[in-house]
Amino acid sequence: MVELLASWKVIENNTLADLKMNKPLRVALLGLGTVGSGTFNVLKDNASEIERRVGFPIQIKVIADLNTEKARELAGPGVDVLGDAFEAVKRDDIDVVVELIGGYTIAKQLVLAAINAGKHVVTANKALLAVHGDEIFAAAEANNVMVAFEAAVAGGIPVIKSIKEGLAANKIEYVAGIINGTCNFILSEMRDKGLPFLDVLAQAQAFGYAEADPTFDIEGVDAAHKITLLSSLAFGVPVQFDKAYIEGITKLTKEDIQFAEQLGYRVKLLGIAKRTEQGVELRVHPTLIPSKRLIANVEGVMNAVLVKANAVGPTLYYGAGAGSLPTASAVVADLIEIARTSQAPLSSRVPVLAFQKEGVQNLEVLAMDKVVTAFYLRLAVDDRPGVLAEVTRLLADNQISIEAMIQRQATSEKETAEIVLLTHRCVEGDVNKAISRIEALDSVHGPLTRIRVEDLS
Amino acid sequence: MVELLASWKVIENNTLADLKMNKPLRVALLGLGTVGSGTFNVLKDNASEIERRVGFPIQIKVIADLNTEKARELAGPGVDVLGDAFEAVKRDDIDVVVELIGGYTIAKQLVLAAINAGKHVVTANKALLAVHGDEIFAAAEANNVMVAFEAAVAGGIPVIKSIKEGLAANKIEYVAGIINGTCNFILSEMRDKGLPFLDVLAQAQAFGYAEADPTFDIEGVDAAHKITLLSSLAFGVPVQFDKAYIEGITKLTKEDIQFAEQLGYRVKLLGIAKRTEQGVELRVHPTLIPSKRLIANVEGVMNAVLVKANAVGPTLYYGAGAGSLPTASAVVADLIEIARTSQAPLSSRVPVLAFQKEGVQNLEVLAMDKVVTAFYLRLAVDDRPGVLAEVTRLLADNQISIEAMIQRQATSEKETAEIVLLTHRCVEGDVNKAISRIEALDSVHGPLTRIRVEDLS
Repeated sequence: MVELLASWKVIENNTLADLKMNKPLRVALLGLGTVGSGTFNVLKDNASEIERRVGFPIQIKVIADLNTEKARELAGPGVDVLGDAFEAVKRDDIDVVVELIGGYTIAKQLVLAAINAGKHVVTANKALLAVHGDEIFAAAEANNVMVAFEAAVAGGIPVIKSIKEGLAANKIEYVAGIINGTCNFILSEMRDKGLPFLDVLAQAQAFGYAEADPTFDIEGVDAAHKITLLSSLAFGVPVQFDKAYIEGITKLTKEDIQFAEQLGYRVKLLGIAKRTEQGVELRVHPTLIPSKRLIANVEGVMNAVLVKANAVGPTLYYGAGAGSLPTASAVVADLIEIARTSQAPLSSRVPVLAFQKEGVQNLEVLAMDKVVTAFYLRLAVDDRPGVLAEVTRLLADNQISIEAMIQRQATSEKETAEIVLLTHRCVEGDVNKAISRIEALDSVHGPLTRIRVEDLS
Repeated sequence: MVELLASWKVIENNTLADLKMNKPLRVALLGLGTVGSGTFNVLKDNASEIERRVGFPIQIKVIADLNTEKARELAGPGVDVLGDAFEAVKRDDIDVVVELIGGYTIAKQLVLAAINAGKHVVTANKALLAVHGDEIFAAAEANNVMVAFEAAVAGGIPVIKSIKEGLAANKIEYVAGIINGTCNFILSEMRDKGLPFLDVLAQAQAFGYAEADPTFDIEGVDAAHKITLLSSLAFGVPVQFDKAYIEGITKLTKEDIQFAEQLGYRVKLLGIAKRTEQGVELRVHPTLIPSKRLIANVEGVMNAVLVKANAVGPTLYYGAGAGSLPTASAVVADLIEIARTSQAPLSSRVPVLAFQKEGVQNLEVLAMDKVVTAFYLRLAVDDRPGVLAEVTRLLADNQISIEAMIQRQATSEKETAEIVLLTHRCVEGDVNKAISRIEALDSVHGPLTRIRVEDLS
C-alpha cells in the first residue's frame, strides 16, 4: 500500500503520464462516408489547433472501407487502408476504433470486437446504441474501455457532454429536443410556404436533406433513437428504445400548421423524455409549442435540445444536427476526450451513461394513456347550432377543459364547418375516450385530428 | 521505469484510485451570499442524484462568512463556520476552496493563498479572473492545482465546458454573447413596452434584476469581463481585459430600438470576441442583430452565447445567466469535475484556458478603428432637398455604402427631419471620419447616433 501511494505521487507529479501522453492517439476509422470523410478532414485541417489544445496529435493509422480505392486517395501515405474492417479492429497499433458504418448488424459485431480487443470506441450510430446499448456498454465496462457517442445525438452540438457533465449538479426534469433535421426542415417549409407535406418531402430529397427512403426520419424512428439515449443520460435509466412511443410527421397538414400559428404556436417534431412521479415518459410526436419559446424558432435543418433541470432551470443547446463536418466535430471531440482520460484511472472517467452502474434505476416507462399534455383537436362538423355544445360536453365529461377555440364556417363549396380546440392539460387516456365518443356523433365527420401541446415554460 | 509502469497498471486496474475516490471531496465555501447559499443548497438538495452520478459525496467541511451567525444557522451540525476566510483556506482537511466573495482585493489574496496551500479553486468571480487571471492561472500551474470558473460566465449555462471540450475539434471563429442579464432585461422591456432607459432601469432595480449601483452592468464592464475570459478560451490568448473596447447601453433610446425593429433588427448588448487575419477583436457594445436570428430572440434576464467554429458551424448555448441556484449549478459542476480529475495525472486534465501553455499565442487585440462591421446611423437634418445627397456623398467618399434607409419627415412641432441609415460592412475608422464630416454639415443637427450591426449568419 505504501508503495502504491508512492508511485501514485510520481504520476501526480507528471512524469510517466506525460511520457505516455506525448505519444499520439492511434485511430482506426471504419467507414469513409459523409461523417467518416468529415472526421478525416477535421483531424487534418485542424491538426495544429487540436495539438495546441491537447498537446499531442491524434493520428489516423487505419481506414477501413469497402471502397479501398477511394479511401487510398483520401488517406494519402502513412495510413493503412483495409477493405475488411474486422482486420482493422484487431490491430495492435490502434487505441481507438471509430465506427461510422451505421446499421445494427456489422456495426454491432465490429463495435463488440473492438471492445473485446481492448479498444475504446467512438460511434455516431444512434440506432445501434438505442437498441443494443445496454449490451455494448456492459461489454465496454467488462473490458475497461470507453464508448463515446456525442455524434449520435444532435450532430455537432455538445449536448451529451452538457447533460453528462455540465448539468451534473442537477436533477433533470425533462429533455425536449428537435433532433431530426429532416423533419424540422419539412415542417419549417410547410409553414413558411404553405405547402403540403409530400411536396416538401420531395424538395427535401432533392436538396439532400432527406434520404431516398425517408421512413426512419419522417416516421420519428431516428428521433426516438436519440431521445432514448438522452433519457438514459438524463435520468440514469437503461436504454429502452422498445418502450418509446413514436409518431412521425406524415399526417400533418398545412392547415394544422396554419391553425397552430393562429393560436400562437409552432408545430415541431419533438423527442421528449420526462421524469414524473409515475415513471419516465419517452415519446416522439409532433408537438405544438408556443411561438415565443426559443426552441419554437429553430428553423430548417437545425437541431436544438431543451433541458429543464432543478437547479439551473431551462437551458438550450442549438446547432447543426447533421452533416459531414458538424458531426465530425463531435467525433473528434470524443477522440480528444478519450486521449485525455484513457491515461487516467478508471474511476476518474465520466460513466458512459452519466451515472455510476450502481446508480442506474430501472424506472418504468409510462404508457401513453397516462401521459399528461394539452391537446390541439381539429374536427369537421355540421354547420348547425348545438354541435359545439355536444362536443364540449363530451370533453367536459372526461375532465377536459378548453383553453382556446377557432371556428371556421362552412363555405358554399363544402358543407362542413371546422372547429379547432386547444385543451388545458389532461390525461391522454381521457382524451382518447372523449375522442371516440366525439367521432361517434352524427354531426361530426371523419376522424378527428389530434396533436399534443407542450408549454415548455 | 519498469516499476512505474507496473504500478500504473495497478492504477488502471482500479484499486488505489477507487480507494481514494470513495472518500468525499472536502470543500471550503467562502462567502454565503446569493451564490454561496445556492451552492450549499444544491449540494444538499441534490446530494443523492450527485452521488448517483459521481459515486462519492461532495462535502462542505468549512463555511467562511463575516456573518457567522447566519452561516451557522444554514450550515447545521458537521460544518465548521469561520469568520476569517484566510483560516479556512489553510486547513489540512480541505481539497477545494470555493471563492464566492467577489471583488479584486480580498478575493485575490484568498485565491492565491488557497493555490499556494495546494488547494484547487472554484470561483464565479469574472472580474478577478478577467483582470488578474494570468497571474492566478500561473500560480495554479506552479502548484499543480486546478482553477475552475464555469459560473463566471453565463451563470448555469455550461458554455465554458462546451468551448473547452465540446468544440475542441474546431478552430473557433467568433464568440458573440448576451452575457449580462440586467442589460438584456432592460433592452427587452424598452422594446416591449416602448419605455425609455431610465424608467426600465428603475424597474429592474425594483425587481432585483439590477444592483443599487448598476454601473458595472449597464456600462458593459461585467460583459467585458466575461467576453475577455471567453476569448482566451476560444482562441488560446492571454486574458487581456485592459484591451477590451467597452460601450454600455445607457445612451440607447427607445426610438433607436423602434427604428431597428422597423428595419428587421433587435438591439442587444453583445460581448464579441472574433479571430481575424489582423488580430483578435474584443469588444462589448449595443448591437443590431437580424430579428430572425435565434440569439435576437433571447429575452429578459436570460443569457445566450453563440459560438461560430470552423467544423461545427454556429452553435448556441442558452439559459439563466445569474441567480442563486443556476449559478450554483455551475459551481457544483466544477466541484464534480475537480473531484474526478484531481485523482488523475496532470496531463489528463483539460488546461485551465483550454490550450496547453505552449499553445497560447499572444495575438494582438485589434484597435476598434480597424474593426469591420455594418452600422446603424441616425441623424437629425434640415427638412429640405439636397441634405440626403450631401450625407450619402460623404459616406461614399469614405467607402461606405448604404443598405437600407428610413426617413421621417419633420412634423409641425419640430423643424428637423430624421434619417436612419443602415450601411454595408465597412471599416470603423472610415465611419468615424465620415461621421465627423457629416456632423460638421450645417444641415445636420446635434451628434449622430451610431450603433454597430452584426449579421451573425
